[in-house]
Amino acid sequence: MKSNQKSSFEPFDLLQKVRRQAPLVHHLTNWVTIYDCAQIVKTLGASPVMAHAPEEAADMTQIAAALVLNIGTLTESLVKAMKLAAAAANRKGIPVILDVCGAGATPLRDRTVLALLDEVKINVIKGNASEIARVAGQNIQTKGVDAGEVSADLETLAKTLAARRQATVVITGATDIVASEKQLYRVKNGHDLMTRVVGTGCMATSVIGAFAAVEADYGRAAAGALACYEIAAELAAEKSQGPASFKAGLFDCLYQLDAATVANRQRLET
Amino acid sequence: MKSNQKSSFEPFDLLQKVRRQAPLVHHLTNWVTIYDCAQIVKTLGASPVMAHAPEEAADMTQIAAALVLNIGTLTESLVKAMKLAAAAANRKGIPVILDVCGAGATPLRDRTVLALLDEVKINVIKGNASEIARVAGQNIQTKGVDAGEVSADLETLAKTLAARRQATVVITGATDIVASEKQLYRVKNGHDLMTRVVGTGCMATSVIGAFAAVEADYGRAAAGALACYEIAAELAAEKSQGPASFKAGLFDCLYQLDAATVANRQRLET
Amino acid sequence: MKSNQKSSFEPFDLLQKVRRQAPLVHHLTNWVTIYDCAQIVKTLGASPVMAHAPEEAADMTQIAAALVLNIGTLTESLVKAMKLAAAAANRKGIPVILDVCGAGATPLRDRTVLALLDEVKINVIKGNASEIARVAGQNIQTKGVDAGEVSADLETLAKTLAARRQATVVITGATDIVASEKQLYRVKNGHDLMTRVVGTGCMATSVIGAFAAVEADYGRAAAGALACYEIAAELAAEKSQGPASFKAGLFDCLYQLDAATVANRQRLET
Repeated sequence: MKSNQKSSFEPFDLLQKVRRQAPLVHHLTNWVTIYDCAQIVKTLGASPVMAHAPEEAADMTQIAAALVLNIGTLTESLVKAMKLAAAAANRKGIPVILDVCGAGATPLRDRTVLALLDEVKINVIKGNASEIARVAGQNIQTKGVDAGEVSADLETLAKTLAARRQATVVITGATDIVASEKQLYRVKNGHDLMTRVVGTGCMATSVIGAFAAVEADYGRAAAGALACYEIAAELAAEKSQGPASFKAGLFDCLYQLDAATVANRQRLET
Repeated sequence: MKSNQKSSFEPFDLLQKVRRQAPLVHHLTNWVTIYDCAQIVKTLGASPVMAHAPEEAADMTQIAAALVLNIGTLTESLVKAMKLAAAAANRKGIPVILDVCGAGATPLRDRTVLALLDEVKINVIKGNASEIARVAGQNIQTKGVDAGEVSADLETLAKTLAARRQATVVITGATDIVASEKQLYRVKNGHDLMTRVVGTGCMATSVIGAFAAVEADYGRAAAGALACYEIAAELAAEKSQGPASFKAGLFDCLYQLDAATVANRQRLET
Repeated sequence: MKSNQKSSFEPFDLLQKVRRQAPLVHHLTNWVTIYDCAQIVKTLGASPVMAHAPEEAADMTQIAAALVLNIGTLTESLVKAMKLAAAAANRKGIPVILDVCGAGATPLRDRTVLALLDEVKINVIKGNASEIARVAGQNIQTKGVDAGEVSADLETLAKTLAARRQATVVITGATDIVASEKQLYRVKNGHDLMTRVVGTGCMATSVIGAFAAVEADYGRAAAGALACYEIAAELAAEKSQGPASFKAGLFDCLYQLDAATVANRQRLET
């Protein structure tokens, strides 16, 4: 696990599977970045859908291939719908990805994350350093939805939480850490402009959802998803003048991403 | 009706009326594409407004010139507000346009569409092939909000539903079909990139709403709206590198659309 | 107050303070422009957060440096959360900025604005001419969220309301008026394309929120915020082809804004 070797799978192969299978990715997500989550899934060649009414959240999950939950702007009704949808996903055997957006910022967020983790099966837990540290039980403050200071060793944190929750844990940052129960990946792609655009974290979660819909090894799915997405970000940054042109380029570059570019640029290590 | 002749009205004339009259177009729509629906109406030179509280939905309708309903992310409270707003629109005599987004995906959506069609007067019913087939009573599955397979003859489907519901029916696709009670239009403008951008269907509905606010023949309004909107899409596609630059170009090109371009490019047939 | 002199402070100095301090700006805002409000704050170098559940609105305010309220798509639950958040902000002594979006369009909006002004301390009241005229008690109609006709003298209107409510009052328009209890500013920057983009008004309010988080003289904060934001708009307009490229440019230009450009272009008068 500490070998720092290039990964043995090609992230682009997973992207190709997403493009070919065009899975339906259901979301119960926040009101700030909901459009971007949908558009990033569409950009991959997959089908996004967002249906948050408790009366239909489970029905929509029945026809989906993955379920993405994001607590960025949670309400009691939304949490209720999340539990119904996740239970349906568990019964159907499709992956549930949880973005613990803002964990560590308020008691409601902490309580909600723990309730979800305890009451339904979450396959991928994803957040920034302070969010994941909080979910792992540390007494830490998240600055709204932006990462606060964390002194812990993040790889150990991810591995410990992965083992405890029997899930894949993703910590995003300059180097992303992906810890499944059996493997740890480091993704060193990406660009600092991502921290200047609202929604880059939420979109990463949606991309992981689309990849997990076509790849049963969720650690591999998450690492491959982040590599592809962040290579697109690097390409976009090269021709951007600021956050808006960067964001537009991120969609366009991900749409056009090809095998050679991913193979050349990927910095995914195990 | 099967003459395949160029239409006898100029779509650009209707766009000019929208720009001159700047109608207020009220929306009760979904949380995913709500911004784009507002911006596309603004881009036309009209005024969008979105007020979904049951306590004010009818009041806002009182000062509007058209009402757009979209069930993309429906809740019980939103449906209640839709009925109140539509009833106010019916009393005032302004057009009500319903995007049956996701009909055929869940029972809640099907029930909601039927309840709206039965309880208030809907002037324009708009959806993709599988959504409209479902509303017409066929046993069909929509893939979230993306069209599923439909084997039926779409023109017959549209005409039959138009007659049954005494409404104008719009089926979007490579060729859009617009069936009023007295006339059938085919709009062959558009570009395949529209299927890669979330919200192009919702925005089409908002454009139809703005045109219906200034043109009492709703079949003509819908056909003219789609022609103008999709010509802008063709122009945008010519200079785009992917979904984001395409979408930005769609707004910019629609904003700049002129009479000569519309006259030359329109592929609107009766 | 009628001297029409260049202002004695540098707006760019406040922008620099925002960039250095990166304040957390909490929002309870509308569903149409929520993303843009977040992104404009992020573009300034600050941290946006949006948490509208009544169960956490006050908790999130506890860790914030400013609170922005916007009634663009209000509901009863949202108003309840606004009151809880504003009360927490008042206790903590951080500024509360209220965008009276759509005041004068429906009775619910008028009632809500008055309830907020009466029940909590609002430090900055911001709207277009007809919205502020309505809040000041005039019998006036707002066209949804777009300004209606107002015959009153806007400077007097702003000063009177500022005195009555012991608040800073901002009226946006071709010339923006900012009236604190002790000073009146006119901001003559900006561009007409701002009226063709949904959310430019809401974003202005968020920028004011970020500036008020670092400058205790709220009149100065609001005037400096508008000057910087609208200079970015002027720069963006120079290279735009329509509303979408203009909006993208607005973010990019604000991100890159430097001291010399602001000093040269600012048209802020007292």
